[in-house]
Amino acid sequence: MSENRPLILVTNDDGINAPGIRALIEVMNTLGDVMVVAPDSPQSGMGHAITINDTLYCNSINVIKDAPHKEYSCSGTPVDCVKIAVNEILKRKPDLCVSGINHGSNSSINVIYSGTMSAAVEAGTQGIPSIGFSLLDYSLEADFGPSKKFVKAIAQQTLKNGLPKGVVLNVNIPKLNASEINGIKICRQANAHWEEKFDKRTNPVGRDYYWLSGEFVNDDEGEDTDEWALRNGYVSVVPVQFDLTAYRAMDELNSWELK
Amino acid sequence: MSENRPLILVTNDDGINAPGIRALIEVMNTLGDVMVVAPDSPQSGMGHAITINDTLYCNSINVIKDAPHKEYSCSGTPVDCVKIAVNEILKRKPDLCVSGINHGSNSSINVIYSGTMSAAVEAGTQGIPSIGFSLLDYSLEADFGPSKKFVKAIAQQTLKNGLPKGVVLNVNIPKLNASEINGIKICRQANAHWEEKFDKRTNPVGRDYYWLSGEFVNDDEGEDTDEWALRNGYVSVVPVQFDLTAYRAMDELNSWELK
Repeated sequence: MSENRPLILVTNDDGINAPGIRALIEVMNTLGDVMVVAPDSPQSGMGHAITINDTLYCNSINVIKDAPHKEYSCSGTPVDCVKIAVNEILKRKPDLCVSGINHGSNSSINVIYSGTMSAAVEAGTQGIPSIGFSLLDYSLEADFGPSKKFVKAIAQQTLKNGLPKGVVLNVNIPKLNASEINGIKICRQANAHWEEKFDKRTNPVGRDYYWLSGEFVNDDEGEDTDEWALRNGYVSVVPVQFDLTAYRAMDELNSWELK
Repeated sequence: MSENRPLILVTNDDGINAPGIRALIEVMNTLGDVMVVAPDSPQSGMGHAITINDTLYCNSINVIKDAPHKEYSCSGTPVDCVKIAVNEILKRKPDLCVSGINHGSNSSINVIYSGTMSAAVEAGTQGIPSIGFSLLDYSLEADFGPSKKFVKAIAQQTLKNGLPKGVVLNVNIPKLNASEINGIKICRQANAHWEEKFDKRTNPVGRDYYWLSGEFVNDDEGEDTDEWALRNGYVSVVPVQFDLTAYRAMDELNSWELK
């Protein structure tokens, strides 16, 4: 690998064989030297989970013959992949970490459930400029073609400008043809939530069990949100921080009778 | 259950049989009608993971004979427990959700890995005043006695005052005798990170594997942080938000060449 080209770590949460990570690798190979360290199986909904009571396996694999990049398949979560990449596999701290392209939205409150974004956040806590990319199409046959120019533009600008301290990017791309996408919007996270609906069934031996399902409810009318941008044909970019302190709440709490 | 007493949901991430949740249930029984819905096995480090590709079991259990509260043991993550409690088990939205008492710290950046805090955050997204409690003692034999009066005071104030919209509390308690604890401090999350050290070993059939371990590095000298408070004998209370937007970064990103 060249010493002059940027070193780029690629990971995801849909697993190393997902079409989304293949599209991301293809774009990143045009920008720098690429190292892929990704879960060996799908890890959707894993949030910022880490493996602390089990062993981790991490193996060099060869998905594509004569590829310019290297790949490792890891038994852990997306966050585990970033940790093991940075500490055991990469010879130096990468210049960029990209995660995705996720099959499905990570906009709004979905950011807190997202393994894709947690991988980006983990790299961010280690001082690495990081971006999570998601396409609003859950299908394994999703067309990642229209995403590529936006992924490239945002990654290039991140490599050029860096990111503010303590900030990573949450990028969501609408499921549209290239000609239908209106551009890129910097947004805030919409104030939305999930209303759960559990599907209760009975197993063959008579024991009740549940499937988690639910409905996404957007309570936010703002035109500066990621939900608005995506509904209106824009790629949404939300700067995400991992200092979770609600500074605005501190005065109120200081007035409580706790002293 | 009475209609006048507050309805309190109790969960955790160390599992329904952990001593920490027993201490929390004991305190909550003095404040309201208690429903426990907690994981059937330890879920530490699960972050905001949810179970989307597997079934969930949730069974009424009787841990203590003639207890005033009810308990359900759930096969999922802490976040699953909150979702199933609110949507399938409780007859109305609870007045308070408490999670813990965790065996070990969830201060500073640990908040993003914490199943204890993710359960509280999940309840928060559903509009329920919520608190995660953690004691800085990983031992299963930890003494939760000194924690109880602080847990009770903070829960009482939360029931009385409510919490600002979009905010939950992250409470950490130092491992000290009751007489050594100086009081409660409202804090910001310290700017700290983990430096990983993987322990590489070889299994009996010759395959390499890793154990994740690491060192907590606090880069923050501030005396207004949770880390400072805990080191100086205070119970730390950090208001935590789940709007992760880094508003301060939006101007800078708007200056990028993306349009």
